[in-house]
Amino acid sequence: METNSLLHETDLAPAALAQAMLKQHVADNAETLNNLELERASQVLAALPVERAVEVLDQPEFVAAPEIIASLPAPTAGALLNAMSADRAADIVRLLPDDTKPLVLSVLDDESRAAIQRLLVYPEDTAGSLMTTEFVSVPSTFTVGQTLEHIRNVERTRETVYAIYVLEPMSRRLVQMVSLRRLISADPAAPILSAARDNKPITVTPQTDREEVGRLFRKYDLLAVPVVDHFGHVLGIVTVDDAIDAILQEGSEDVQKFGGMEAIDKPYLQMGFGAMIKKRAGWLCALFLSEMLTASAMQSFESELEKAIVLTLFVPLIMSSGGNSGSQATSLLIQSLARQELRLRDWWRVAVRELPTGIVLGAILGLIGMARISLWQYVGFYDYGHYWPLVALTVGAALVGIVTFGSMAGSMLPFILKRLGFDPASASAPFVATLVDVTGLVIYFSVALVILRGTLL
Amino acid sequence: METNSLLHETDLAPAALAQAMLKQHVADNAETLNNLELERASQVLAALPVERAVEVLDQPEFVAAPEIIASLPAPTAGALLNAMSADRAADIVRLLPDDTKPLVLSVLDDESRAAIQRLLVYPEDTAGSLMTTEFVSVPSTFTVGQTLEHIRNVERTRETVYAIYVLEPMSRRLVQMVSLRRLISADPAAPILSAARDNKPITVTPQTDREEVGRLFRKYDLLAVPVVDHFGHVLGIVTVDDAIDAILQEGSEDVQKFGGMEAIDKPYLQMGFGAMIKKRAGWLCALFLSEMLTASAMQSFESELEKAIVLTLFVPLIMSSGGNSGSQATSLLIQSLARQELRLRDWWRVAVRELPTGIVLGAILGLIGMARISLWQYVGFYDYGHYWPLVALTVGAALVGIVTFGSMAGSMLPFILKRLGFDPASASAPFVATLVDVTGLVIYFSVALVILRGTLL
Repeated sequence: METNSLLHETDLAPAALAQAMLKQHVADNAETLNNLELERASQVLAALPVERAVEVLDQPEFVAAPEIIASLPAPTAGALLNAMSADRAADIVRLLPDDTKPLVLSVLDDESRAAIQRLLVYPEDTAGSLMTTEFVSVPSTFTVGQTLEHIRNVERTRETVYAIYVLEPMSRRLVQMVSLRRLISADPAAPILSAARDNKPITVTPQTDREEVGRLFRKYDLLAVPVVDHFGHVLGIVTVDDAIDAILQEGSEDVQKFGGMEAIDKPYLQMGFGAMIKKRAGWLCALFLSEMLTASAMQSFESELEKAIVLTLFVPLIMSSGGNSGSQATSLLIQSLARQELRLRDWWRVAVRELPTGIVLGAILGLIGMARISLWQYVGFYDYGHYWPLVALTVGAALVGIVTFGSMAGSMLPFILKRLGFDPASASAPFVATLVDVTGLVIYFSVALVILRGTLL
Repeated sequence: METNSLLHETDLAPAALAQAMLKQHVADNAETLNNLELERASQVLAALPVERAVEVLDQPEFVAAPEIIASLPAPTAGALLNAMSADRAADIVRLLPDDTKPLVLSVLDDESRAAIQRLLVYPEDTAGSLMTTEFVSVPSTFTVGQTLEHIRNVERTRETVYAIYVLEPMSRRLVQMVSLRRLISADPAAPILSAARDNKPITVTPQTDREEVGRLFRKYDLLAVPVVDHFGHVLGIVTVDDAIDAILQEGSEDVQKFGGMEAIDKPYLQMGFGAMIKKRAGWLCALFLSEMLTASAMQSFESELEKAIVLTLFVPLIMSSGGNSGSQATSLLIQSLARQELRLRDWWRVAVRELPTGIVLGAILGLIGMARISLWQYVGFYDYGHYWPLVALTVGAALVGIVTFGSMAGSMLPFILKRLGFDPASASAPFVATLVDVTGLVIYFSVALVILRGTLL
């Protein structure tokens, strides 16, 4: 569903394009600007009314924003950042080139600079870096009516007004959260706390990982969550739209990690060639070095290989089956751990299930493999030699062993990573395959030694 | 962060546990019930006050709900479903065993049954199945004050009141959306449409895929989106909490598909053994059958294998490098396509980048491989024979070809799948590996034929 008619507009002059963009949703504006060349994008952004330009910059999807801000004259850039929401401005400043960052910070007004610098302290991927400082809070001495009046006054400058944080008047510690829907139905003369739920409000700390933030939004169906320090002071709030962005970014990182590469945070076409190689080469080299063990394993079975060349024909088939069953099991368990359906101590319940699962899956593949060899031999597509029934049996038995090992290794790896304090999602499909490949070869040749001893070997 | 102290509570009697659960958040209640044995969970749910039991059932994370509802006496189950929100009740009814479904439907009151049956019509994974019919709408003739009064009256029975849908009074078609925050700041005597934004409201149809629904929430920072039929009537709304669930489910399905298995929608430990085998065996068998082509490829190079056993030593290493580079590229491109950073027609821009990327990555691995062979030969770990420099060259050159092919195939596959109308996320790592394995063997032996002709071959 392509809803943005200006997305691939190339003929209009910058001022005319800016004019046409005013009729669209700001999210579409961001998309249009993302797709323009840098110079043209700067011109179009500059041609927009300031208020609209600020709204577009406030869109987290406007990934070209840091580059465009860096290309503008410093006073213009500063004026725009001053007018933006502090959390989004901090996101942009974070991504500015190191040589323009101090200049841009220096032209900001004091209040914005302080707010942005406070946010820049928190590491990426934490609640602190996701939060906005523009939320609604009232002292617990307020009435419902006073609170509504306060909201009406500050509505324009707050990211959300649907969650109101009630603070202890003296210490300014968080006491309760009141939702706007409860507020508008409550008696205006009643004390604000009468509109609160009984539950303790759900909170996070600035250090809470964004994955955990996303989990809380999902579990408690939140529209916003307050970020509190250890005194109970509200530092800011994370709103649901930022939580969704965090969830989606976490999701793409998981798929990229599972595919065996470092997560990238830029659109594909905006990654430099060198950066792309760097993100990919590290993992490939690490896997390549581990996979070299397969060459060593093959070397140690060299005399068997020489005696029975027929065995080499099935090496790729056997190896890939182990890898496939392993990545299946891993993808399944990564998800179950992420959704907290399983705890660390459930590992043995998983092992007890994966063992018979692996045996059955291996037996299915083994039977297919034996049927294939028998059929080829029978029809005459290929001659596997005098001992072909034993060769078929070797392949079948090895598949049971390898698929079982693959399922077990693939399912236990996420537990082991989690136990060691790593993200289970770092267990990538290629990593599991590499782990299983070497063992697979050893299993295959060991089975062959048992079955074919005295005949082929 | 384990926040739920009753999660693993096993000693309390059902009534006492129900009592203790009242002090907790309903989301924690759902989690606790999910972790109990079916019989005990039914007892505890029945021991909760009806109002709380309904609230817990309304949690989409309460995955054990269908089983528990099915285990309750039909009148009890019916009373609970009557009191629940229609969308969540429909989700539960959808998952009831086929033999209890008609019984439960028959004890519902007419209004609930009609609402649930309307929702059951829409296929899973569409906006229709995610939507709730409990939203706030007012005719466009209302004033701001009248609308606020209406919201106060219906607030208790609506899933969200933060988005108000303004309908044409006669045709009841959707005219505009007004947010509650604009409403409370507006003049109560002003017409409701004065508080609306100028933009056309964002809408979806009941058939819109949940992935697209998630994308719209992210792009437009929505709290709810109306589901309209082709006359412009609002059938229901999808709220942001349901959109988050959909986004997360879509994410885990993507990882599972990428790992090479059919997506599963139940927690790992709740899947039956047979169902688990079924979900996994299909993909494994399909991959196994395709991978058999590697045996055919090996067979056709049998005479080369016999002459140069040394070549077989590197078959696993070469194959896996192709597979790894392929799954890397695929995981990268799936994400870029999903985030709409790339369009179908950008395929050539990707191809033009992946070609040099693959060559450089292949050259890096090739150099490492050649260094490894030279080192082993030099130190005396293994003797690759008189022509070892040519063997090393063969491995190095083959790696450049195979990694380049892997990157190209892995990056183009998602485009091809999308072009054919499939979900690009169905391109799984094992599938890409299988695709690259056969070609990898052919590339390897072809390179060997060129380099080693006249010496080893």
